[in-house]
Amino acid sequence: MPSLRLVSAAEIESLAIGAWILGTGGGGSPYLALLNMRQLYRQGALVRLVDPMDLADDDLVAVVSNMGAPLVGQERLTDPRTIARAVTMMEEYLGRTFQAVMSLEIGGGNAIQPFMAAALLDRPVVDADCMGRAFPEAQMTSFAIHDLRMYPLTLVDVRENALIVAQAASWTWMERLSRTACVAVGSIASTCKAPRTGKEVKECAILYSTSKAIRLGETVQAARRTHRDPIQALIEAERGRLIFRGKIRDVARRTTEGFLRGTAALDGLDEFRGSAFELAFQNEFAVGWLDGRPRVMTPDLICVLDTVSGEAIGTETLRYGQRVSVVALPAPPVLLTPRGLEHVGPRAFGYDLDFVSVFENQ
Amino acid sequence: MPSLRLVSAAEIESLAIGAWILGTGGGGSPYLALLNMRQLYRQGALVRLVDPMDLADDDLVAVVSNMGAPLVGQERLTDPRTIARAVTMMEEYLGRTFQAVMSLEIGGGNAIQPFMAAALLDRPVVDADCMGRAFPEAQMTSFAIHDLRMYPLTLVDVRENALIVAQAASWTWMERLSRTACVAVGSIASTCKAPRTGKEVKECAILYSTSKAIRLGETVQAARRTHRDPIQALIEAERGRLIFRGKIRDVARRTTEGFLRGTAALDGLDEFRGSAFELAFQNEFAVGWLDGRPRVMTPDLICVLDTVSGEAIGTETLRYGQRVSVVALPAPPVLLTPRGLEHVGPRAFGYDLDFVSVFENQ
Repeated sequence: MPSLRLVSAAEIESLAIGAWILGTGGGGSPYLALLNMRQLYRQGALVRLVDPMDLADDDLVAVVSNMGAPLVGQERLTDPRTIARAVTMMEEYLGRTFQAVMSLEIGGGNAIQPFMAAALLDRPVVDADCMGRAFPEAQMTSFAIHDLRMYPLTLVDVRENALIVAQAASWTWMERLSRTACVAVGSIASTCKAPRTGKEVKECAILYSTSKAIRLGETVQAARRTHRDPIQALIEAERGRLIFRGKIRDVARRTTEGFLRGTAALDGLDEFRGSAFELAFQNEFAVGWLDGRPRVMTPDLICVLDTVSGEAIGTETLRYGQRVSVVALPAPPVLLTPRGLEHVGPRAFGYDLDFVSVFENQ
Repeated sequence: MPSLRLVSAAEIESLAIGAWILGTGGGGSPYLALLNMRQLYRQGALVRLVDPMDLADDDLVAVVSNMGAPLVGQERLTDPRTIARAVTMMEEYLGRTFQAVMSLEIGGGNAIQPFMAAALLDRPVVDADCMGRAFPEAQMTSFAIHDLRMYPLTLVDVRENALIVAQAASWTWMERLSRTACVAVGSIASTCKAPRTGKEVKECAILYSTSKAIRLGETVQAARRTHRDPIQALIEAERGRLIFRGKIRDVARRTTEGFLRGTAALDGLDEFRGSAFELAFQNEFAVGWLDGRPRVMTPDLICVLDTVSGEAIGTETLRYGQRVSVVALPAPPVLLTPRGLEHVGPRAFGYDLDFVSVFENQ
């Protein structure tokens, strides 16, 4: 009998705050998904969270995400029915029923996508994901690192378009096929990724990341209520590290190939006065340079937060003049293995850098 | 009981010649598919042709084609198993069996694709297609003109990639979704289009076009054997019209967006000496200008043939110095209706011209 617990409306609010921090700039702003959840809860929905270790080995789990360029996700509103349709389409294709829904990535709005599907389809959400943060590409998951099968995938848009990648020659081919379809429908689409068994989730997912996102949100909310510094509270509670504090001087951003790519330049404030910081991103922040030298890089979580409120800032909402703090949070251990770094290390993003964690040398 | 007849190896040879003429420059060279058929026949295959009017109303027919840029089709060899896999994948998706296979377009190598699938899967080929020639895009079919459903579609490549367009919002969306997938796998892919019932084929297909292609090939072959002019023989037998005769002076060609686009310029010879002719193509020849004035345009069939042998020349094999005759052949009547012209008239290809048939004014 799986242990289920009800997720309160307050916890959904905390989840939105925490997931946006874990998004490291990407995963899409959770705000529109949060508005949907508020309405669903007002209409009587109450989503259950299931402990992944309580899944039966042969349970079938739907892994969902909204895929595309975050900037487009801000313009084309999220509708819970779209993500639910990706799930039911997969059920029709498989001729099987999912016992639960889980998030592909706990970062950003994609932390809330399974909750929307769960509310409409009356299934529990698994307390897990397969990134422990957000990443831009299909092969950047713990499931890919563990070499699990990458297909089938269903992809639906807000029109009457629906597509199934029935077979892919590799994870990279799966990324390419689903990405081009996503671009064709307007650079945003709801997807149900390759179905996972309970056994695969227990052995290969990033466990308890939904709870973690809720906890992060609660930490920030508690600090705000008690007039403490939310950034400092977050760093203490999550063993994070302050990397930079400053003001955004410039942002270069383009929506291309189904991604949001670009750079942001920061001028230092407070103890960082006189220094400069540069961030590069592909949906998520990938590398940060302090005065021209690499200071922090993927898969360490690079979180850009409003210095006063502790609210996360996405790569699509960065703008001139924002006062921000750059905080690093530790990555899930599986991402730091040699095989993990092949999938999500700096070279996987095209940066010719050996991975050095900010948590190694201090 | 459907009336079936066996297609001889000699008829396959004639089919390749005739289909290449009906390809109006596109549909892909039939040569590689012909080599495959020769081998399959040597191994004992013998394909049956079924009269479309003998199909039962609820028979299910697979409509197949190799999709993409013809130039790429010359480089990536055709394998009968690829087109057969598109068909069996559709059967698995539908949970139903096809009674027969037919061609999307009778022009070019796509006339032979159903024969390859039929040989491997032991089904008859329907004596019909849905273009009566070749066209570059999904919505340029008699099925689209009759407003039939455009999905599902299966698409496979030579790797282990396979994709299903489960639903499309329109014919244009189906074209866009399948085209981007085709480009992603290298601008050539084997597809099984939306399945058709026997009733739909009888009411909405271009009937007896396979026999017609065989007949065209036989006309050319007979003329060659008897040292008559194959071009003249073709024009007489098929009520065609000689549009131009000359030498190719220039070809501009690019493989882009999954198509082969370009232009060819011709200098006149014989009775056309002193005149110039220009052809524009998107996989197939779309418009021809005589001394700068539109002379022939889609959906009239614009066939560029070797002046001596009567062999068709594809848009991917046009080259400087070829002596060619431009022959127009009549289009199937459904393409000439107002609704037909919306789908395949000159404006559907971006040319701001009112359609005038070369067969109207003489």
